[in-house]
Amino acid sequence: MRTAKLINDPADIVSEMLEGYAAAYPDIVRLDDGLIVRTEPKAEGKVGLVIGNGSGHEPAMIGWVGPGLFDVNVPGPIFTAPGPSKLVKGVTAADRGAGVLICVSHHAGDLLNAEMALEEAADEGIDNVEMAVLWDDVGSAPRGREQERRGSAGLFFVWKILGAYAETGATLSECKAMAEQVRDNTRTLSASLTSSAHPVTRQPIGEIPDGEMIIGVGVHGESGTGTIPVPTADETVDLMLEHILDDLPYESDDEVCVLINNAGALTVMELAILNRRTSQILAERDIRVHRSWLGSYATTQDSAGFAISLCRVDEETKRLYDAPAVGAGVQFTPPGDSTVDQ
Amino acid sequence: MRTAKLINDPADIVSEMLEGYAAAYPDIVRLDDGLIVRTEPKAEGKVGLVIGNGSGHEPAMIGWVGPGLFDVNVPGPIFTAPGPSKLVKGVTAADRGAGVLICVSHHAGDLLNAEMALEEAADEGIDNVEMAVLWDDVGSAPRGREQERRGSAGLFFVWKILGAYAETGATLSECKAMAEQVRDNTRTLSASLTSSAHPVTRQPIGEIPDGEMIIGVGVHGESGTGTIPVPTADETVDLMLEHILDDLPYESDDEVCVLINNAGALTVMELAILNRRTSQILAERDIRVHRSWLGSYATTQDSAGFAISLCRVDEETKRLYDAPAVGAGVQFTPPGDSTVDQ
Repeated sequence: MRTAKLINDPADIVSEMLEGYAAAYPDIVRLDDGLIVRTEPKAEGKVGLVIGNGSGHEPAMIGWVGPGLFDVNVPGPIFTAPGPSKLVKGVTAADRGAGVLICVSHHAGDLLNAEMALEEAADEGIDNVEMAVLWDDVGSAPRGREQERRGSAGLFFVWKILGAYAETGATLSECKAMAEQVRDNTRTLSASLTSSAHPVTRQPIGEIPDGEMIIGVGVHGESGTGTIPVPTADETVDLMLEHILDDLPYESDDEVCVLINNAGALTVMELAILNRRTSQILAERDIRVHRSWLGSYATTQDSAGFAISLCRVDEETKRLYDAPAVGAGVQFTPPGDSTVDQ
Repeated sequence: MRTAKLINDPADIVSEMLEGYAAAYPDIVRLDDGLIVRTEPKAEGKVGLVIGNGSGHEPAMIGWVGPGLFDVNVPGPIFTAPGPSKLVKGVTAADRGAGVLICVSHHAGDLLNAEMALEEAADEGIDNVEMAVLWDDVGSAPRGREQERRGSAGLFFVWKILGAYAETGATLSECKAMAEQVRDNTRTLSASLTSSAHPVTRQPIGEIPDGEMIIGVGVHGESGTGTIPVPTADETVDLMLEHILDDLPYESDDEVCVLINNAGALTVMELAILNRRTSQILAERDIRVHRSWLGSYATTQDSAGFAISLCRVDEETKRLYDAPAVGAGVQFTPPGDSTVDQ
C-alpha cells in the first residue's frame, strides 16, 4: 500500500483538489465558495439536483456536475459528509424555481446532515426541497432490509437517469419517485484486493493482506465477509454475480445496464476480463445488456478493487440513460449520435 | 506493489481482455480476428489510421478507436509490439481507398515491426501506406536529439488532432505531415511513485522504494534520472514543468492544451492538485490554456505515476482538437455543444 502522496499541506488537500479540478474543465464546472456548480446553469423552471459527499472518491461527484447531470456538488472533507449549512447553500445555488432534490448516498453521516439541511432550509423559508435516500450495496444488508443498505457505485444509474429526467421538466415529486424507482432496480457488489491509505492521516482505511480479497467491501473500506485467497477473474464474477442476480432478482428477458466500476487502482485490463465473464453469464441467463461501462466513476482513493452493478431498465429509463450528458473528466453516453463525418 | 491479479490463465490475458473490452462497447468497437476495429467504418475515400502497440496500457489504444479517432488498433502481447503481418492485416482493415497511415509511438520494437510491415505491404502490392513515427518524452533524450525520444502520454494530442483531420478528407501525405507537426509541438515528462507487476510474470517492471519518486520514467517502467524523496505536489510540478517549458520552448502568448495523464494508480485527487499548480505556472508565464484533461488515457498497469503533457496549438489544431470524437470508455471533447435541454 502506497503511503506517500503527491499533495502539499494535508490541511489544504480538498480545497486544492477542487481548485485544480475546476481549473481543468471551466466550460463544464466552476468552483463557487466551496461548491462545484454548473458553468452553464440549467434552464429556469426545472428541478435542481444537489448531492453532498465526502471527498476522496473522485471523479465522484465533481465529475457528475454538468448538463444532463447534477447542478451542484457539495464536497465535504475526506470521507466525511458536508455539514447542513453547506448543503443549504448548495440548495440555494441549484434552485431554478421548480424545487430542489437533495440526493443522499445512504451513509449515516450523509443522511444525518441532509435531514438537518432540510430542517435548516425550512427554517429559512426554503420549502420546495425534498430528499431521496439511495442505496444499492447488497453486501451491506440482507434482502428484506434494503433500506439499511449503503450507497455504492451502482448509484451511477440513478444519477445518470435522474439527471436526464430533471432536464425534461419533470416535477420535484416525479424526480424523487424516479430516483427511488431506479434505486429499487439497482444492485451492486464490490470486492477489493488492496486497501488504501487515508490521504491525510496516511493510515490504512482497511486491512487486506497481499494475495487476499474481500467481497462486500464498502466505499470507505468498510469490511465485508472476511478475506479469501484471490480467485480467478471468472470465479470472482461467478460468485459475485450470482449474489447480485438472485437479490432483485434479475430474470430472463430482463434488460439491464452494466457498470464495472474501478475503485481506483485496478487495471483496465482486469476490468475488461471481469466484464467478459459478466457478459457471458448475462447471455446464459437470457438477460439482455442495453449498455455497459468500464471505468473509474467512484473511487476509494487507490484501492485495487471494483464493483459490479446492474440496473434493470425499461423503455423510459433506457431513453433517459442514453440522453446526452457532459461531466468533467468522465465519459457518459456520447451526446447525440456518433457520426462525426465533416 | 500488488502482485495478485484478477485474471484467469495468464496465457489468455490479452485475448480475454480484448473480448471483454469490445463486449462493453459494441456500438463503438468490435473485435475482428485479433484487431480492434470501428463498428461503423469511416466513409470511403478518407485516409485510414492504424496503430499497433503492446497491450497493458489500457485504455490505450483500444479506447482510441472510433469516430474521429483511429480506424484500427493492432494489439500485441503485454508490452510487446505486434508483428508485421498483423499490422498489415490492420492496414487492410483500415483501407477506405485513400491510403493508410500507420502511427508509431517511438519504441524500438514498434518501429522495427512497422518498418517490416511497410515492406510486407509493398510485397503484397498494397502501396498507399505511410508511417508517422512519433515521440514526445523529454526524459528520454536531450534537446537536439528529439528523434531518439520515446513516445509517451502526450501523443494523446497527435491522435486526437490527427483523427479529426483524417475525417475532413485530408490526403495521406497531409495526414502524415499533420501528425509530425503536432508531435513537434508536444512535450511530455513523467514521474512515478511506485512500480507495477508485469501481469503475466508478476515480476516488478521497475524498482521504486516506498517514499521515493522517479522523474523521467518511461511507459514500460524504463528508469529516468534516479529516485528522489517524494516532493510536494507543487515542487514536483515546478521541477517538471520547467523542464518541459524550456524544451520546446513554450513562450508567453503561446496557447497550449494540457494533459495530466494517470499512469494507473494515482488518485484523481492528486491529478487535480497537480493540475492546480500547472495552471498557475502557465498563467504566470502568460501561456494560455485552450483545454485541459485529467485522467487515465494511457497507463502502465497500476503504476502510481503521471505525466504532464503540453501541446502548442493554433487555430487549425484547436478546431481539430475540439472536433467530435467517440472512444470506448474514454472522454474526449464532448461532441457538439453541451446543451442538453429537451
